[in-house]
Amino acid sequence: MAQRAQPVRGMRDILPPQGELRRRLANAILEVYTGYGFEVIETPALEDLEVLLGSGGGENEKLIFKVLKRGERLGEELARGGDLADAGLRFDLTVPLARFVANHLNELPVPFKVAHLAPVWRGERPARGRFREFVQCDIDIVGEPSVAAEVELCSATLDALHRTGVSGCTVKLNDRRLLRAVAENYLGPLEDPAAVFIELDKLERDGADAVAKQLADFDRGAVRRLLEWLEEGDPSAGPPEIASALEATLSALSAQGYSAAFDPALVRGIGYYTGQIFEVRRADIPYSLAGGGRYDGMTERFGAPALPMCGFSIGFERIADLVDPNLLGPAPHRIAVTCASDEDLLRSLAAAHAQGTRGENVVVSVLRRARNYRKQQQDLEKLGYSEILDSKEFDKSVGP
Amino acid sequence: MAQRAQPVRGMRDILPPQGELRRRLANAILEVYTGYGFEVIETPALEDLEVLLGSGGGENEKLIFKVLKRGERLGEELARGGDLADAGLRFDLTVPLARFVANHLNELPVPFKVAHLAPVWRGERPARGRFREFVQCDIDIVGEPSVAAEVELCSATLDALHRTGVSGCTVKLNDRRLLRAVAENYLGPLEDPAAVFIELDKLERDGADAVAKQLADFDRGAVRRLLEWLEEGDPSAGPPEIASALEATLSALSAQGYSAAFDPALVRGIGYYTGQIFEVRRADIPYSLAGGGRYDGMTERFGAPALPMCGFSIGFERIADLVDPNLLGPAPHRIAVTCASDEDLLRSLAAAHAQGTRGENVVVSVLRRARNYRKQQQDLEKLGYSEILDSKEFDKSVGP
Repeated sequence: MAQRAQPVRGMRDILPPQGELRRRLANAILEVYTGYGFEVIETPALEDLEVLLGSGGGENEKLIFKVLKRGERLGEELARGGDLADAGLRFDLTVPLARFVANHLNELPVPFKVAHLAPVWRGERPARGRFREFVQCDIDIVGEPSVAAEVELCSATLDALHRTGVSGCTVKLNDRRLLRAVAENYLGPLEDPAAVFIELDKLERDGADAVAKQLADFDRGAVRRLLEWLEEGDPSAGPPEIASALEATLSALSAQGYSAAFDPALVRGIGYYTGQIFEVRRADIPYSLAGGGRYDGMTERFGAPALPMCGFSIGFERIADLVDPNLLGPAPHRIAVTCASDEDLLRSLAAAHAQGTRGENVVVSVLRRARNYRKQQQDLEKLGYSEILDSKEFDKSVGP
Repeated sequence: MAQRAQPVRGMRDILPPQGELRRRLANAILEVYTGYGFEVIETPALEDLEVLLGSGGGENEKLIFKVLKRGERLGEELARGGDLADAGLRFDLTVPLARFVANHLNELPVPFKVAHLAPVWRGERPARGRFREFVQCDIDIVGEPSVAAEVELCSATLDALHRTGVSGCTVKLNDRRLLRAVAENYLGPLEDPAAVFIELDKLERDGADAVAKQLADFDRGAVRRLLEWLEEGDPSAGPPEIASALEATLSALSAQGYSAAFDPALVRGIGYYTGQIFEVRRADIPYSLAGGGRYDGMTERFGAPALPMCGFSIGFERIADLVDPNLLGPAPHRIAVTCASDEDLLRSLAAAHAQGTRGENVVVSVLRRARNYRKQQQDLEKLGYSEILDSKEFDKSVGP
């Protein structure tokens, strides 16, 4: 029986012309980021499970694809009741970055600004528009304790989105310390604030009743008042230094002409944030296009000093559908040369090579003429070929 | 105790400026390939294990990183003695491409030319310069039965290498059908030719004695004569149509000015090849820079017609060390603005934004001045910053 030809459940193939569009989109974003001085790095797709687990990744930690230990020792390991897996596919780029920084601290300048574009994997229940493999495009600033980090990350992210034609975006801002202060005002001291934040984060998606149900351990009236604050509270409910830091971020962004606003309902379902958190929203789209926040001290887990860290991550797939392809560089002029015989093919290949016009802006594709030539022409037109020549016409156009 | 900060065993982090160099290298290669009409695609990092196993991947199939099944059913599965893993990380881009083509046959034109740049994973014994995660950059032609495919793949690959400064390369050419005919001449009919090829492939690395030892099931003198043919045989030892096809490839490449030669010792340790095979070599380097061959019919495993397929894969890491960075685009002019206070930081961020000169060719990086300013300057110079300004100097240069 034939193998199934579909990709692994929840993942997908990228066909042309989407593949080239995504390459150009990645370049456009990274060019904005490198213009700001963010340095491109890479980390491996796999991390030791100890790196990924207990990282404050919240529910994402439950979604890790674990990789079986390798080698003959797996049998012994099983017999001893040991672990089957010792590594996993990363679920974000933030935890690997903290490990990276701790590992290379002596080789890196601090402050250090980093850009990181790569796939991540989460074993979510497959659903329309939600994939188990997707690309994140992160920028992070290591070693900057003030809101200058937040301001620069928001500015660079909005510039990158604007560069690709995703305009009209707003940064929504909140602070985890404010959320915690407000939550504890209403609910009393929290043993596990991260667990509460994970529930509060579902307010927009699931509604107040569903969230209140998940928080049934707390006083019902207190939970109701907390959820009301999330709807229309303001920063004055928390310590004044947190309110003024939020104000500093917002006013710096406004002064540069960006749209930015405080949003009490912005929580983000990840445990590791320690300060301001932010998302990019656009009015016509029911989900965030980018998300991030401050996660000071994550390097400490890896035996390094507790450095200030702050990052912002664009959901690549989320914006790939919104970009304006015309802003990603001129479409090349595409010429297809169709050949009826082996001899024609070899002659046209040599002629195209000798002509020497191929490059970023000129495509010359030499191909065997398909039996169904009409369909081949249509397919080539769909791929953007505006000139479709017979090999003899082409040879004549190239000249002797 | 702190987590170890090193990457997973056998994998590595990419630091600046290597990250940006690799981005530019990938773009340079893909621009050559898209100029030839190869269309960029992507496939998931994970494939169903059935796709990867029994694919003719040879020893690579033993090196697959397997991914644990997800979900609560794993316990039940174990209890039933079922499989722990149902997916694995791809070990090459060829097997996923065959699945991709079978899956999307109705959406793709045939002939179809495809470019695919992505990481692959192999659990090899870690060694100096050998990594368990590395990037391959493949081009493939689907639906072209004649050597026009081989000629175009070799031409495009040598052009891509030349474009990045890796010049002076030669294509080495052989044919699996010739190798099989010669091997059977000496050894008699082969039950498992792929297993014999895997051993013959080790001739250069391990020497004739070691290979002969592995082939001890065959007549000793016959093996010795076969190994002698591999040293200096010629295509006339096989069927004339195979010899003339090799000659057709070589002469088409020579006529276009490329260096190409028959190499009887070229075997390649992968099972799925069905015709001509090739590698790129450079005299000063003891390993191949690219490898490929014809693997007609691999689509059939996935329930599609047995299409002609042929591909060539550049080992990205192998050439990253050889490229000429000056050919990958002009280095941007880099300006660092160091700021002594929060206020200076916010003001210089706004000034840099207002100036609007940032882009592919101008980097303006605003940073807090480090306590050890001398070291910070040196670090920034190492990253290519030729101007390092104080925030006040910068504000003045930008003007009011």
